[in-house]
Amino acid sequence: MAIEEVIGRVARDLEHLKKYTATPGEGCTRLPFTKEAKEAVEYLRSLMEEAGLEVHEDAAGNVIGILKGEDQEAPCVMMGSHYDSVVNGGDFDGIAGAVCAIEVARQLKEKGVTPKRNFAAVGFCDEEGMRFGTGYFGSGAMLGDRDVEYCRKFKDTDGISIYEAMKGYGLDPEKIGDAKWKEGSIGHFLEVHIEQGPVLDAEGVEIGLVDCIVGIQRYMVTVYGRADHAGTTPMDMRMDAVDAATKVISKIPDWAREKADGTVATIGYINTVPGGMNIVAEKCEFTVDIRSKNNDNINDITRRIRAALDREVKQMGGSYEMDNKLTITPVQLSMDMLKVMEKSCQEHEISYKYLPSGAGHDALEIGQTIPTAMLFVPSKDGRSHCPVEFSKYSDFAKASVLAAELAEKLVTE
Amino acid sequence: MAIEEVIGRVARDLEHLKKYTATPGEGCTRLPFTKEAKEAVEYLRSLMEEAGLEVHEDAAGNVIGILKGEDQEAPCVMMGSHYDSVVNGGDFDGIAGAVCAIEVARQLKEKGVTPKRNFAAVGFCDEEGMRFGTGYFGSGAMLGDRDVEYCRKFKDTDGISIYEAMKGYGLDPEKIGDAKWKEGSIGHFLEVHIEQGPVLDAEGVEIGLVDCIVGIQRYMVTVYGRADHAGTTPMDMRMDAVDAATKVISKIPDWAREKADGTVATIGYINTVPGGMNIVAEKCEFTVDIRSKNNDNINDITRRIRAALDREVKQMGGSYEMDNKLTITPVQLSMDMLKVMEKSCQEHEISYKYLPSGAGHDALEIGQTIPTAMLFVPSKDGRSHCPVEFSKYSDFAKASVLAAELAEKLVTE
Repeated sequence: MAIEEVIGRVARDLEHLKKYTATPGEGCTRLPFTKEAKEAVEYLRSLMEEAGLEVHEDAAGNVIGILKGEDQEAPCVMMGSHYDSVVNGGDFDGIAGAVCAIEVARQLKEKGVTPKRNFAAVGFCDEEGMRFGTGYFGSGAMLGDRDVEYCRKFKDTDGISIYEAMKGYGLDPEKIGDAKWKEGSIGHFLEVHIEQGPVLDAEGVEIGLVDCIVGIQRYMVTVYGRADHAGTTPMDMRMDAVDAATKVISKIPDWAREKADGTVATIGYINTVPGGMNIVAEKCEFTVDIRSKNNDNINDITRRIRAALDREVKQMGGSYEMDNKLTITPVQLSMDMLKVMEKSCQEHEISYKYLPSGAGHDALEIGQTIPTAMLFVPSKDGRSHCPVEFSKYSDFAKASVLAAELAEKLVTE
Repeated sequence: MAIEEVIGRVARDLEHLKKYTATPGEGCTRLPFTKEAKEAVEYLRSLMEEAGLEVHEDAAGNVIGILKGEDQEAPCVMMGSHYDSVVNGGDFDGIAGAVCAIEVARQLKEKGVTPKRNFAAVGFCDEEGMRFGTGYFGSGAMLGDRDVEYCRKFKDTDGISIYEAMKGYGLDPEKIGDAKWKEGSIGHFLEVHIEQGPVLDAEGVEIGLVDCIVGIQRYMVTVYGRADHAGTTPMDMRMDAVDAATKVISKIPDWAREKADGTVATIGYINTVPGGMNIVAEKCEFTVDIRSKNNDNINDITRRIRAALDREVKQMGGSYEMDNKLTITPVQLSMDMLKVMEKSCQEHEISYKYLPSGAGHDALEIGQTIPTAMLFVPSKDGRSHCPVEFSKYSDFAKASVLAAELAEKLVTE
């Protein structure tokens, strides 16, 4: 097949899907269990049927198209990404990976591959977790990690639970367990996704071979001092929470830089209480988000933060709390799968680069237990989760060609 | 006169004045041009009349009691402080200084002093500036620094201007100019005030001889970076406004400490935009408040902040703004007046300490042009502008005795 034809199909599908947004003209807003989600699922279903796949929507809202193999008992090769978006997000984050999965099924058909095992193209439901403050709902359900209690627990800002939203959407949340795939039934997982970072675009590289999804630790730190008059309290008689906190904050990014292996650390939020121009702050809160493919680096930076807080707070005379909000250990992806695609890159003269994923993906959920690989497509200026998010159709087409060659190898072995 | 008698009178007056608050049980709330302000003025007036003073309320809401001297043309000795308070403030800030001024008039009478010049005890209107976001209204008007335009310009949170509030209170704002004292008609000014800081209380000293009201420079600094995904943007490709800003903020308090002369620097407010845990901040705003009796130290710290911002912002690749919000140069108080009171301290075996005032006062406004001195009374734990604000009646009594001895010397020379 000619690459131009692939580009054309990917472009047609993604252009069509752009219209399923709750905020036309202001980016893609496709929250789970909404009209826009249903419309996107129906379109993906039609593409899957057109490609000759056997299609069903599961109990969690995932849409699945199966290219049947000879042995229904053999572990399948699964490929896909999510069809939901954030609020006022872009037209590529997630949905492009679902489209690429269908494109791979098309290419397998066109090549006349006789699969020994099933190839499953999936559009996952609610990866972003935007509506209910969660994430990886559909992929988690496939692994048996979501139950009725979970659906009842999480609610959107209108107080509607996942349970209620599912019922309104036409799904039976009591049957969420049915979405689980039998252990061992998924042999490999593959996901194409936009990078959402600037590396590939800045370096002019066409494809990212994702060898790892980074681990994350998140903390909310609160430093407690004492409110005092900014004019009348001498420096050596004050307990300045900002002074202590910023002496720690200002070092954290450099600790990440020193690792020089892609480790990142971000303080995205600082709040001062009471926050008066002429009042020494009694409280300074800040968030810390540390990510690395090397879990030891995350632990080391966390340890340094605690040590620095101990030191500065002792110096000040106050106290602090460091509240863990999230801990995810890094997931190593399958080098066996990546090596196959690296070889394809070389054969097709597609430029590539190994890199970690700094963001979570369905592949993070699935990759915990199943051999998994990801391909990144460059994001213009690294922008995503906003209307200007942009990636080239030709890059998605290239990714689908690489993925199809891997899929062919896997389904025929 | 016996000190016990003085303590009793000061206690009686301040206990009585406690009731003129809009927030009974929750500290003193006595905003200018309100019922509570009127009640306090009426009580001060009655005390002044009881002390045999000639009383009037001027066009700016100041209440003034004159102990007449032989020469009406000679520059008077003025003493006083403000009768307004902040919201939910204490029972001593300001009003105690007005009570002490009346007490000094009483003592001059009791001593049988025959003043050559007038002694004026004043309760100033609206020093705090709480209601209209201003300050030093009454003392400013006495110096001719407040006009009709000013009264129309500033409004409270209900949209009521000073002009309207004055009319509602029974004053004619068109006549604000009448509050001005003729140039040269005030020879000396003296103010007793609570310290509002912890120094005297911590050191167990009874009286503070205030030799200087510190200068202040205030800035709002905004550091501009770029919002990026906290996971997918490598450290060397991000423009992290928090990283740049906190590298500067964390040094500022130490620059003040290094001066080792009472210079203070406070960052009371930090705000991050957009403020997401997983988003590199595109903007970090913070306030800087620097105070010192040595203006060169303030200028030096300001210069260092600019240099550090230049450096960090260049390193980051972003930009910054540093917006001056307030500049007050230090006011040196009258050592001639202070030396007289120092001698009195020694004679009465009252412990004392020279110290600067870190906060502004009516004496700051008046001291710009007229020989001025201040006495500080210890504030328990340095607390003020809150209901737990506390100073001892005996300390106010001691301050009034010192002030009376200075006043006697000044009115008789």
